[in-house]
Amino acid sequence: MTDPRVLTVRPEPGTYAWTFGGAPPIARIAPGTVPDLFTEDCFAGRVRSEKDLVSQVCEFPYLNPQTGSFHIEGAQPGDTVAVHFASVEPARDRAASTTVPLFGALTSTHTTASLQPPLPETVWIWELDRDRRTARFAARYSEFTAELPMDPLHGTVGVAPAGLEVRSALVPDAHGGNMDTPEMRAGVTCYLGVNVEGALLSLGDGHARQGEGETCGVAVECAMRTVVVVELLKGVATPWPRIESDTHVISTGSARPLEDAFRISQLDLVRWLVRDYGFGELDAYQFATKTGESPLANVCDTNCTCAAKLRKEWLPARETHRGVHARLREIAATLPRPGR
Amino acid sequence: MTDPRVLTVRPEPGTYAWTFGGAPPIARIAPGTVPDLFTEDCFAGRVRSEKDLVSQVCEFPYLNPQTGSFHIEGAQPGDTVAVHFASVEPARDRAASTTVPLFGALTSTHTTASLQPPLPETVWIWELDRDRRTARFAARYSEFTAELPMDPLHGTVGVAPAGLEVRSALVPDAHGGNMDTPEMRAGVTCYLGVNVEGALLSLGDGHARQGEGETCGVAVECAMRTVVVVELLKGVATPWPRIESDTHVISTGSARPLEDAFRISQLDLVRWLVRDYGFGELDAYQFATKTGESPLANVCDTNCTCAAKLRKEWLPARETHRGVHARLREIAATLPRPGR
Amino acid sequence: MTDPRVLTVRPEPGTYAWTFGGAPPIARIAPGTVPDLFTEDCFAGRVRSEKDLVSQVCEFPYLNPQTGSFHIEGAQPGDTVAVHFASVEPARDRAASTTVPLFGALTSTHTTASLQPPLPETVWIWELDRDRRTARFAARYSEFTAELPMDPLHGTVGVAPAGLEVRSALVPDAHGGNMDTPEMRAGVTCYLGVNVEGALLSLGDGHARQGEGETCGVAVECAMRTVVVVELLKGVATPWPRIESDTHVISTGSARPLEDAFRISQLDLVRWLVRDYGFGELDAYQFATKTGESPLANVCDTNCTCAAKLRKEWLPARETHRGVHARLREIAATLPRPGR
Amino acid sequence: MTDPRVLTVRPEPGTYAWTFGGAPPIARIAPGTVPDLFTEDCFAGRVRSEKDLVSQVCEFPYLNPQTGSFHIEGAQPGDTVAVHFASVEPARDRAASTTVPLFGALTSTHTTASLQPPLPETVWIWELDRDRRTARFAARYSEFTAELPMDPLHGTVGVAPAGLEVRSALVPDAHGGNMDTPEMRAGVTCYLGVNVEGALLSLGDGHARQGEGETCGVAVECAMRTVVVVELLKGVATPWPRIESDTHVISTGSARPLEDAFRISQLDLVRWLVRDYGFGELDAYQFATKTGESPLANVCDTNCTCAAKLRKEWLPARETHRGVHARLREIAATLPRPGR
Repeated sequence: MTDPRVLTVRPEPGTYAWTFGGAPPIARIAPGTVPDLFTEDCFAGRVRSEKDLVSQVCEFPYLNPQTGSFHIEGAQPGDTVAVHFASVEPARDRAASTTVPLFGALTSTHTTASLQPPLPETVWIWELDRDRRTARFAARYSEFTAELPMDPLHGTVGVAPAGLEVRSALVPDAHGGNMDTPEMRAGVTCYLGVNVEGALLSLGDGHARQGEGETCGVAVECAMRTVVVVELLKGVATPWPRIESDTHVISTGSARPLEDAFRISQLDLVRWLVRDYGFGELDAYQFATKTGESPLANVCDTNCTCAAKLRKEWLPARETHRGVHARLREIAATLPRPGR
Repeated sequence: MTDPRVLTVRPEPGTYAWTFGGAPPIARIAPGTVPDLFTEDCFAGRVRSEKDLVSQVCEFPYLNPQTGSFHIEGAQPGDTVAVHFASVEPARDRAASTTVPLFGALTSTHTTASLQPPLPETVWIWELDRDRRTARFAARYSEFTAELPMDPLHGTVGVAPAGLEVRSALVPDAHGGNMDTPEMRAGVTCYLGVNVEGALLSLGDGHARQGEGETCGVAVECAMRTVVVVELLKGVATPWPRIESDTHVISTGSARPLEDAFRISQLDLVRWLVRDYGFGELDAYQFATKTGESPLANVCDTNCTCAAKLRKEWLPARETHRGVHARLREIAATLPRPGR
Repeated sequence: MTDPRVLTVRPEPGTYAWTFGGAPPIARIAPGTVPDLFTEDCFAGRVRSEKDLVSQVCEFPYLNPQTGSFHIEGAQPGDTVAVHFASVEPARDRAASTTVPLFGALTSTHTTASLQPPLPETVWIWELDRDRRTARFAARYSEFTAELPMDPLHGTVGVAPAGLEVRSALVPDAHGGNMDTPEMRAGVTCYLGVNVEGALLSLGDGHARQGEGETCGVAVECAMRTVVVVELLKGVATPWPRIESDTHVISTGSARPLEDAFRISQLDLVRWLVRDYGFGELDAYQFATKTGESPLANVCDTNCTCAAKLRKEWLPARETHRGVHARLREIAATLPRPGR
Repeated sequence: MTDPRVLTVRPEPGTYAWTFGGAPPIARIAPGTVPDLFTEDCFAGRVRSEKDLVSQVCEFPYLNPQTGSFHIEGAQPGDTVAVHFASVEPARDRAASTTVPLFGALTSTHTTASLQPPLPETVWIWELDRDRRTARFAARYSEFTAELPMDPLHGTVGVAPAGLEVRSALVPDAHGGNMDTPEMRAGVTCYLGVNVEGALLSLGDGHARQGEGETCGVAVECAMRTVVVVELLKGVATPWPRIESDTHVISTGSARPLEDAFRISQLDLVRWLVRDYGFGELDAYQFATKTGESPLANVCDTNCTCAAKLRKEWLPARETHRGVHARLREIAATLPRPGR
């Protein structure tokens, strides 16, 4: 017997989205729908061994395939889509990470341009043990290996951007997109402001784990099987993506220079405290300064992304975003645990 | 008798393009065509008096209307479109400049976010004397007036971007767009790399004059009557927009932080010297460092734009871009001088 | 009976240092010495009530007084000073935080210059409960209060800079200084590269707690009673300040734009893995990308500071910095717990 | 017969200053004094042939020697020193330029850190023809040579900084220093705000010519014989260095990111228009936006420097800086033309 709320999506090759905006809907869904999704990895599945160099096997702009888009019925500009991540599970036993020429934080790039040659291109294949929930790093230039905890997440989730734009799935901005924050793990609700009718939600870019800042530009990239619960908050505007977990409220900002990503995320957090928690603006600025965590998301993409994170337990006991996180959390608890 | 090369374009309301990419062609033109264009000002013509505040009369995203797009026959990714500006003439006797809330270099913005309130919104109306070729500034907060030389130019010219993207006409990037450089005046040829079949060229955002950096975010904005000659260089790639005048070669870069815009423009200039003028790479780096001018274009838009400019007389006497600038200059000389 | 290793320092007014470099030594100490210090708060103790606005009671450049400098016997350029924080305890029952005109991340500043007026100046006085180890926030513009955990730390610790320079105590850079990272708490060892004979160590700027990024520019500022153990690593160079805790290795970088602070800290971490843990360079880059935490320190000072943090348990079991952290940890355990 | 106003200074080796602040005065001079100076090149004269690589022949921090400091009698914090460049003439027939490892705009650096190896180190020796006033570039990797016009200037001029600091002569900031702007040529007056008693003026870093931005980090470096007229403006504050020529007023800003250097220079220009030319603040912002030139000075030093330049002929006919530029210009005209 199938759960009528659940929409199972296993995209055929050729049906992925490569952009936010401009990608035709693969389904129209009502608020409350529970998409059970397969997402391909950022390499479109083409990096399968240490021999598969990105510059040889991947074809720009066909990078970072997104599963979607989903037209959410009733979503209008000025509303907010709430995406609760019920589960995020690697869909294969292997993942890949690489260096990519002129991409990453410790190399010159196409914009931080220099006359220096790019770094060497190398692939690392990671064994995932889905029972023990570990990802195994094996050094390429020595014998070192390490078993690291899996911490699966989606690097990319977003909606169609504002201003008639279509953005590459590699870009993070106000519409979400390739934010690459490790906060986007199972158990959280992501809030995205709607810019076009139907919102046109997509997600992808699964990471078995990543560090904060995603320094070299690539995480432990893997295909995912992911279950989300999608809700709609009518009449609630969300200028920049927010994340809510059981324990934290998290604002994000994406821009260059990185200072601006920080500023955006901090200002959004201040406004969150003002709107939903009753703070005066200067009190909120002051309080966030003393209590906030500021984990970097990425410092490698076309925009950098910063998170501004604050413990709910230190805030007044009030409802935010109409309490939707708690409700979606409960719905997620009723879903069957995904098999493989 | 009409010149068969000339294509007269006077757009109807509702036929402007608001994006690069995604804007349907209003004409297919063969290389060699001479579009004689009307372009509306960046306010879509809505700021007509000191009472017309941008925040009240303009409607985002319907800002910076472009005349186009033009599908250039035969243009393929990897080619270059050459746009020679034969004449750029204000189409009205008045122009407008303004402050715009949270836009400009000497204010916080939506990305350089702060808790400070925006600056006051004010409009300055400029009288243009097209015979004397002057633009008259009248202070709003004192009696000062000044007659400044007109130096008409297009703030925006570009083609559809790469990577399946559609960008707002307010954005400058590798596809050109809203570069806002005073170098884009009559007499120069702009080279734009083709990213999609037909290139999809548009232009707009006429300025009767502007300073370098466009500090407050707004120039002396006016509708233009502009004649360009459009040519196609098959098999010549142009990663970032270039400009050639009778006296200078000019590379551009658009990015944030501004350092990166500078780096892109300088690296492009180095590569231009290497490819077309026979320099070794380090020699070119060295030579450009000692001879280059670096006028800022804009430090206010979503990306900042920098120009890297070098006198041709100091370079070896070689042909660049297949000598197209000289040929288009000659064609321009044969065109009837535009009336009004 | 006094511990002969301990040097008790309670500075008289007029004996604080306001710079790194250029501040005469208040004591010469042998490696192994245990300074038991009083440090004044960043306001030089002048903000005592909500009426004490920084712009009125403080006098530039007499901000951020440092206790020191200490001439460490035998320290030469190319060596490293190890400063182990045995205890960091607020010296008073009250602390202060403020807004400061044109200082902080969510305002224009003297360098991120704008025409906007500064934010209003306000003081928040925090009650510290040293038994319950809490700091009490009381909103100024509403009734909200919160008891937050104390997490005492030093915002500023450093040595004389290289290159004959003298830097304000407000500046963080390669010599340490005003890094404002919450990682600088009791239990950690800070490594600072020596630039001048005797190193000339100072510290100050106690915070009862702070958020990551120190958004408004000011933490919960308080005088401290702090006990450190000072050691010297001859022949070990430390280009940028490092921190070692029982659980983590932490590199730092201080620069603008913030991207550069990130790059410095990440490159230093990569080099740490290569030098002390046997990684190949690209393996280290890759491994750090997948495992690192990147908590921001400050995004408000003259340079921004970023930390790059990695769990020791994931690294090969090797000794770093000659095992000095473990030895200093043991010495700290033998010290009498500070009274008040 | 000697001119009693003229103070001839030919420094002995060992008497140069390497910092602003902290350098003892080599002379006390009264306002109105005319120092006739020899300045050594930025390499301290050690790069004499193509074999003299900076990394081998120069010794950090003994780079960029300054002739000074000069204690200006009567100068107090809050005053302004006016330095009029009467003549700037190369003191030798040769000049040098180089690449320097991890220094410059088109390479990673110690702060824009990457894992890439530095660019190759190369020296270019320039023949200066002082009669024809040309500097001859000879490519190292091909046969190309070019005769370029000499345009001699000082890359570095400054006073002791504020805030008790001592800064390396390689740093540009509010005290002036290594601004590396081609605007600092004969005929201009540079205004520097006084921070310490006596101001402690120094200058050096002669360039036979340079491009805007000084991309590779090095200009056509040469020793200079320079005559300046030094004046003192009591009670005039100058927060950031300004330059006045016969034709232009020029504000400068030095910071990173480059946006901030731009912002500082533009805000200073706005304030100049408000204080001395009677503009309202928003009128000044608007007018400068439409009329300003924004030539980059350097995008390679520890801070980047931007100039904001406006034609005097477009301004109201008023006196600025008490008319000192015109007076110093006249004095300069009475000086004997320097021999060699």
